[in-house]
Amino acid sequence: MKLKPLHDRIVVKRMEEEEKTAGGIIIPDTAKEKPQQGKVMAVGEGKFTENGNRTPLSVKEGDRILFGKYAGTEIKVEGEEFLIMREDDVLAIVQ
Amino acid sequence: MKLKPLHDRIVVKRMEEEEKTAGGIIIPDTAKEKPQQGKVMAVGEGKFTENGNRTPLSVKEGDRILFGKYAGTEIKVEGEEFLIMREDDVLAIVQ
Amino acid sequence: MKLKPLHDRIVVKRMEEEEKTAGGIIIPDTAKEKPQQGKVMAVGEGKFTENGNRTPLSVKEGDRILFGKYAGTEIKVEGEEFLIMREDDVLAIVQ
Amino acid sequence: MKLKPLHDRIVVKRMEEEEKTAGGIIIPDTAKEKPQQGKVMAVGEGKFTENGNRTPLSVKEGDRILFGKYAGTEIKVEGEEFLIMREDDVLAIVQ
Amino acid sequence: MKLKPLHDRIVVKRMEEEEKTAGGIIIPDTAKEKPQQGKVMAVGEGKFTENGNRTPLSVKEGDRILFGKYAGTEIKVEGEEFLIMREDDVLAIVQ
Amino acid sequence: MKLKPLHDRIVVKRMEEEEKTAGGIIIPDTAKEKPQQGKVMAVGEGKFTENGNRTPLSVKEGDRILFGKYAGTEIKVEGEEFLIMREDDVLAIVQ
Amino acid sequence: MKLKPLHDRIVVKRMEEEEKTAGGIIIPDTAKEKPQQGKVMAVGEGKFTENGNRTPLSVKEGDRILFGKYAGTEIKVEGEEFLIMREDDVLAIVQ
Repeated sequence: MKLKPLHDRIVVKRMEEEEKTAGGIIIPDTAKEKPQQGKVMAVGEGKFTENGNRTPLSVKEGDRILFGKYAGTEIKVEGEEFLIMREDDVLAIVQ
Repeated sequence: MKLKPLHDRIVVKRMEEEEKTAGGIIIPDTAKEKPQQGKVMAVGEGKFTENGNRTPLSVKEGDRILFGKYAGTEIKVEGEEFLIMREDDVLAIVQ
Repeated sequence: MKLKPLHDRIVVKRMEEEEKTAGGIIIPDTAKEKPQQGKVMAVGEGKFTENGNRTPLSVKEGDRILFGKYAGTEIKVEGEEFLIMREDDVLAIVQ
Repeated sequence: MKLKPLHDRIVVKRMEEEEKTAGGIIIPDTAKEKPQQGKVMAVGEGKFTENGNRTPLSVKEGDRILFGKYAGTEIKVEGEEFLIMREDDVLAIVQ
Repeated sequence: MKLKPLHDRIVVKRMEEEEKTAGGIIIPDTAKEKPQQGKVMAVGEGKFTENGNRTPLSVKEGDRILFGKYAGTEIKVEGEEFLIMREDDVLAIVQ
Repeated sequence: MKLKPLHDRIVVKRMEEEEKTAGGIIIPDTAKEKPQQGKVMAVGEGKFTENGNRTPLSVKEGDRILFGKYAGTEIKVEGEEFLIMREDDVLAIVQ
Repeated sequence: MKLKPLHDRIVVKRMEEEEKTAGGIIIPDTAKEKPQQGKVMAVGEGKFTENGNRTPLSVKEGDRILFGKYAGTEIKVEGEEFLIMREDDVLAIVQ
């Protein structure tokens, strides 16, 4: 089973603490809006502009991203939890 | 009797728990904005842009979709309940 | 006497319970924003876009429509009650 | 003395109860946003679009209109009360 | 000393009660948003549109105008009080 | 050391009471939103429009301006206080 | 490990008090919205306009910038703290 997010939405698999990279991005507990790390599982085809064209997304499947703590909606597929958010909720791509 | 939703609206038949797929998308009870699953029964012709063209919808009749719990307006037609929502309330298409 | 609604507004005659169709669209009493059924009596010429053209309405005189409970403004003409609402308050056309 | 409303504004003379037409549009007392009837005394030249053109108004001097109860600003000129409102506050033209 | 208002702003000299015209525009004391009368002392060059052009103002120096009571910011220049407001706060030109 | 404000922002040196001009713009103490006087020290290159062009600012270095009391953000550079505000916060240029 | 901010976002390394320049930009403690100083570590490729082009950023890697105290989201990478903010939160470039 697969999810195909619409327009500027993406499906993200949250990366738990134990999945942290060697470099170690640590999310401070006290920050008001905590960034979090995840892996992009699927991306939409982009939002339509007024001219009827789509603006393609800048993140792609497989990207490791940072996003705000309250970004997106949580869903569970086959026992695994995912997040569906808009690309605008993505802060940065981790390279 | 048929419903023809206007512009970017769609008519959705909510899928009850017992209609869950084998893969089993489970909607967590505690999530603030719970996603839900449904089947698209009818779609509008798309919103007009400033140039007078319509932007066609990306979902089509028969699509299985995920949407937020409070998306849309509930109506009852011939004893069956439906939801009328905007396409922007659709989170993802289930494939 | 006739009413000519402006731009994207329409004049609607609310359909009472006893006017329900055979198919029977029932509006749930407990729904937060209850949809309702009516008949379109008159339509505006459409909203102007930035280019100075009008976007014609998608509903037309005689259409049977569903709309939210709080849509529009109530007026009384020659003893009959009507609603004046924007086309965007229309959820769907009943066919 | 004359008033020339700016852009999309119009000057309206409210029609008192005793001025009601034969058809008799009655404004319900309990309606949250009560429509009211008036006569257009002067209209602006229209709002500017982004291209520097004006969108002409759809109401004209002499039109009998319906508008919401709280539409516009009240002014008194030579003892008579008028309303200055935006065309978007006009619900319909009475023909 | 002169003031040159920016873009769509204008400098207005409020007309006191004793400066009322023969026709006598009277501002009702109880109105929620009281219109007021003034004389335009200086006008801006107009707001920029997206194409980089300015939309010229429709009021000009010397115009007698009506505006809402809370429109604009009060300043004092050489002992005299003025108002700086946006043209959109102007209700009508008195002719 | 110099500050280069971004886009439609400007750097302003507030003019203290003792720096008042001969003409004497006096800012009333009781006004809800008090205008204030300052000198423009640096200006941005203008905001981008949708076409990718910048709209140049209408104020320039050296201009004496009026602005609202709560406009901008205060900063201290080499012991002197400055304000960084958007051009839209500028009410008028004093000539 | 590197962060690539999306669209109009930038990664900023906050400059501590001891890193102040000779000129000494001091941020007043009592200011409601305190500006702060930092160094740009990475910039996005710019926001998309309606025509599908990106508007390039006006700040670049290495720039020393001033920004509001509550601008951006704090993240920690390899023990160092960074901020991810939108370019619009940048008040000025320090030269």
